[in-house]
Amino acid sequence: MGIRSTIGGYLRTRLSECGIDAAFGVPGDFNLVLLERLLENDDLCWVGNCNELNAAYAADGYARMKGAAALVITYGVGDLSALNGIAGAFAEHVPVICISGVPPLHAIRQRMMLHHTSGAGNIEDVMGCMAQFTAAQARITPANAAREIDRLLETAMREKRPVYLQVPCDIVNLEIEAPSAPLNLAPLQSDRKQLERAVGAVAERLENARRPAILIDGDAHRFGLRPLICELGQTLGVPFAALASGRTIFDEQHPLYRGIYAGVASTGQAAETVEQSDCLLAIGVRFFDITTGLHTHNIDDENLVAIDPFSVSVDGKTFEGVGAADVLRELNLHFGSKGKSTAAAEVAMQAPLSIAEPQASLSYESLWQQLERFLEPGDVVIAESGTSSASIGGIRLPAGSAFIHQTLWASIGYALPAMLGSMLAQPARRHVLFIGDGSVQMTAQELSTMFRCGLKPVIFVINNAGYTIERAIYGREAVYNDIQSWDYRALPEVFRDGSPLLTVRAATQSELQVALEAAQRADRFTLIEVMLEKTDMPKGMVNFGKRVAEFNFGGGEQ
Amino acid sequence: MGIRSTIGGYLRTRLSECGIDAAFGVPGDFNLVLLERLLENDDLCWVGNCNELNAAYAADGYARMKGAAALVITYGVGDLSALNGIAGAFAEHVPVICISGVPPLHAIRQRMMLHHTSGAGNIEDVMGCMAQFTAAQARITPANAAREIDRLLETAMREKRPVYLQVPCDIVNLEIEAPSAPLNLAPLQSDRKQLERAVGAVAERLENARRPAILIDGDAHRFGLRPLICELGQTLGVPFAALASGRTIFDEQHPLYRGIYAGVASTGQAAETVEQSDCLLAIGVRFFDITTGLHTHNIDDENLVAIDPFSVSVDGKTFEGVGAADVLRELNLHFGSKGKSTAAAEVAMQAPLSIAEPQASLSYESLWQQLERFLEPGDVVIAESGTSSASIGGIRLPAGSAFIHQTLWASIGYALPAMLGSMLAQPARRHVLFIGDGSVQMTAQELSTMFRCGLKPVIFVINNAGYTIERAIYGREAVYNDIQSWDYRALPEVFRDGSPLLTVRAATQSELQVALEAAQRADRFTLIEVMLEKTDMPKGMVNFGKRVAEFNFGGGEQ
Repeated sequence: MGIRSTIGGYLRTRLSECGIDAAFGVPGDFNLVLLERLLENDDLCWVGNCNELNAAYAADGYARMKGAAALVITYGVGDLSALNGIAGAFAEHVPVICISGVPPLHAIRQRMMLHHTSGAGNIEDVMGCMAQFTAAQARITPANAAREIDRLLETAMREKRPVYLQVPCDIVNLEIEAPSAPLNLAPLQSDRKQLERAVGAVAERLENARRPAILIDGDAHRFGLRPLICELGQTLGVPFAALASGRTIFDEQHPLYRGIYAGVASTGQAAETVEQSDCLLAIGVRFFDITTGLHTHNIDDENLVAIDPFSVSVDGKTFEGVGAADVLRELNLHFGSKGKSTAAAEVAMQAPLSIAEPQASLSYESLWQQLERFLEPGDVVIAESGTSSASIGGIRLPAGSAFIHQTLWASIGYALPAMLGSMLAQPARRHVLFIGDGSVQMTAQELSTMFRCGLKPVIFVINNAGYTIERAIYGREAVYNDIQSWDYRALPEVFRDGSPLLTVRAATQSELQVALEAAQRADRFTLIEVMLEKTDMPKGMVNFGKRVAEFNFGGGEQ
Repeated sequence: MGIRSTIGGYLRTRLSECGIDAAFGVPGDFNLVLLERLLENDDLCWVGNCNELNAAYAADGYARMKGAAALVITYGVGDLSALNGIAGAFAEHVPVICISGVPPLHAIRQRMMLHHTSGAGNIEDVMGCMAQFTAAQARITPANAAREIDRLLETAMREKRPVYLQVPCDIVNLEIEAPSAPLNLAPLQSDRKQLERAVGAVAERLENARRPAILIDGDAHRFGLRPLICELGQTLGVPFAALASGRTIFDEQHPLYRGIYAGVASTGQAAETVEQSDCLLAIGVRFFDITTGLHTHNIDDENLVAIDPFSVSVDGKTFEGVGAADVLRELNLHFGSKGKSTAAAEVAMQAPLSIAEPQASLSYESLWQQLERFLEPGDVVIAESGTSSASIGGIRLPAGSAFIHQTLWASIGYALPAMLGSMLAQPARRHVLFIGDGSVQMTAQELSTMFRCGLKPVIFVINNAGYTIERAIYGREAVYNDIQSWDYRALPEVFRDGSPLLTVRAATQSELQVALEAAQRADRFTLIEVMLEKTDMPKGMVNFGKRVAEFNFGGGEQ
């Protein structure tokens, strides 16, 4: 049985089924009527961003917390501006539904010369770009609309990757026959016999293991495996470690948590736990330079049991067609779980830190002693790539917190708009961002959208006069690693339009303490500028920089 | 005979030969040593931009005024952030040399899993995107470096389009054997016989024409034809018109200038001149929606003589392989030019306007009466796409002025960074920007780089509470056409770091007059916020909007 719906209305309905209640983007002449249909009955609220790259980053942050996101842009200029954000979502397995309003079908068919095109009389070139960084693409027509919309949304939801729809602007209001059944949003249904074989093989390895352990990465979060993993951890009582791209999936305050595994740059007992395990359940794990201390991971293939989203590999054999959730569920049953995931007991608030040297300048060495105590259970913590993400690797995040970081694609400027997206996805949680000055300058205007949405973030801007992570690698004093000095406290004043605001600058330990106490009380947009020396670096970064320089250039300066 | 040079040093030398003395971009770990080599001996000054899209826009603005530009970014995140700016340069025929520092060859060869990649173990996906919007691409190796660098730079310079070089970061310091001869930067050398035939055919048409006229477009500027065209105009004494994408190539104050041709939206006597000509020399002309009043141009093919960069078409016949400069030069000889281009006599400064209604609110109706008198001979005028570019169509620009506008690609946010680039290319000229609030919000942080470079722009921010050009098309009061209200006068305060500054807000005619007088005197960074009603529109835009809505959606709201 079918229903009658406009193409635009049908797309809105399907986005709602994916749990999406906000649309990010920028209007343009090819998407205006599409916006009318998408926003028609308040299923979706409109988040107009300052530009399309920021919108794509925000959609990514929203999708990480909500399961999927919608990005609505206009052809050509909007698509290509957003592309770096889409590529990040592709790399990091985040389902962003990228919807581009494109020229009318009649003009496409006639190969008319139009603005926002390269003047070649076609719109294939942008499709060619998007095809590199999305899991599926389609140009919607009245003939294919229902089928293609469903195919793309189901692909995005199942594979956790962005997809790209071109919606010609002249067909949005046309009524089509569409299926009345909801989208199929079920995960992959495993082959039953294959699942039995896979689980049997994993269970046997676990039963015979002397030192079983679990290693978790980002896909465990993206594929919704968190509760099943926590349950398995409890059931088996085995130690856990996470990659930097898989933090807070298992509680970092839990007694079984061993730290971040990153080869020679591991924290806590993570390296020992992971490398000495004779049966390492690696759940959704992808190893790459940043998460392996530059390829220094040292895990014997024989000891690795890889539970991936759609397959299991163990003892040199890969079982295709089994879903990770099914595998974990069966393992929990097999090992006699009580069927109940127990999170770590909530950690009591830490006592205020007594500052050792109140007048001392701030440095990464001392900074996190203070910042760590500022974080609270349940916080959403966002770290920008660079010294911010590197230094936060040294602390354990609070119970029940979430952590957002674009570890693989590592595009600076991502974190600030991603925070906007995450706050709109989970407005009840406190959000805390750590970001350097060079990164703030990339996407600073999206603070404006936070005010427009009435949000109350807590933002730490690390002002260290440039790209310190690049200084660690090469050009410690080079002009290309310098940036213009901004008045970061004046920045939100430009955007706030009357909203209340707290801005503080902290250059010493006592100033930071005062700032943190004010921020704890302030129920408002908060920006704390933290002054650091331009060559002050988190522990380990000098070494990291030398090794990157060796890898990239065959050696650094010193 | 060859010379020995490092790959990075060779690239620097070749960029200098193209007349490039500044490099735009953002550092990243894959381009640091490349930056060392490029900046080594002060041939190139480094313009560190706030982000890569802004850098690409700035490079485009610089290339329009200087003939070519260099953009240096890092793999993946930098490439894709810049892509929209590269695509604009591709559409508009602007030679931007896009140089990406990419992972080391050893890692590419081993398909290593690296940050800034999509995790697929290759870097082909970004190349696939860039290939859509550049005239040539190469991945540099020690074996191909000299040949490929030369091929790409010569292609960019001859075809006036962007090119894309991937420079693996580990080979920058390697010494190669390279040619000692300079780049071949000569334009296409025409086939002599074909040139004779083509010029003969054009001359015959001109000699028999009763109403010859000249129509000019952007390629005439990009291919350096301005002096030859001015000479031809004088020689023939025929009237001129320009497309909106080809302004200020011929002097708009010249007695032979007839206005902007745009079909039904033409100004002055342009429509009559162009459409009634029986021999219209169309020089570098491309017709598309924005420049033809939405495809309302009405020019009989039989009357059109197309002089394009590499061919001439006349009487249904196309002569390939003749360069436009050669054709114009021969025509000038044929018609007995004195070989001397006479520009229009310099126009005397206009007397100050006496304001009719000092307390009246500003509107597009009155605004340009005041703004037109502010412009001076020699100014570089930059207009953002939208109401700014639409309204400036109604005035004649001063003698000797230049005009920058991204007419075809029409990406809002372009104009502000493009101004930065143009100012660095021609620092002695006054630069004046007209830009709306929605566009400023896209790329606002690049004001910071203007301060960093010690520049003194004059910027008019039209504050009309959103995307007014979209309101003209659809959604006049729609939430998606609204933006956050910023304090635009506070904005440069964030960036200026002690530099002197003039900011003024003008809501009435007398306030604007005071602001203009202050701006004339102020030898400093100047920002004038012009307050307009959100639905106030330039003349003709209501009609334009209705017709776009009809074209895009099959009809607007009213």
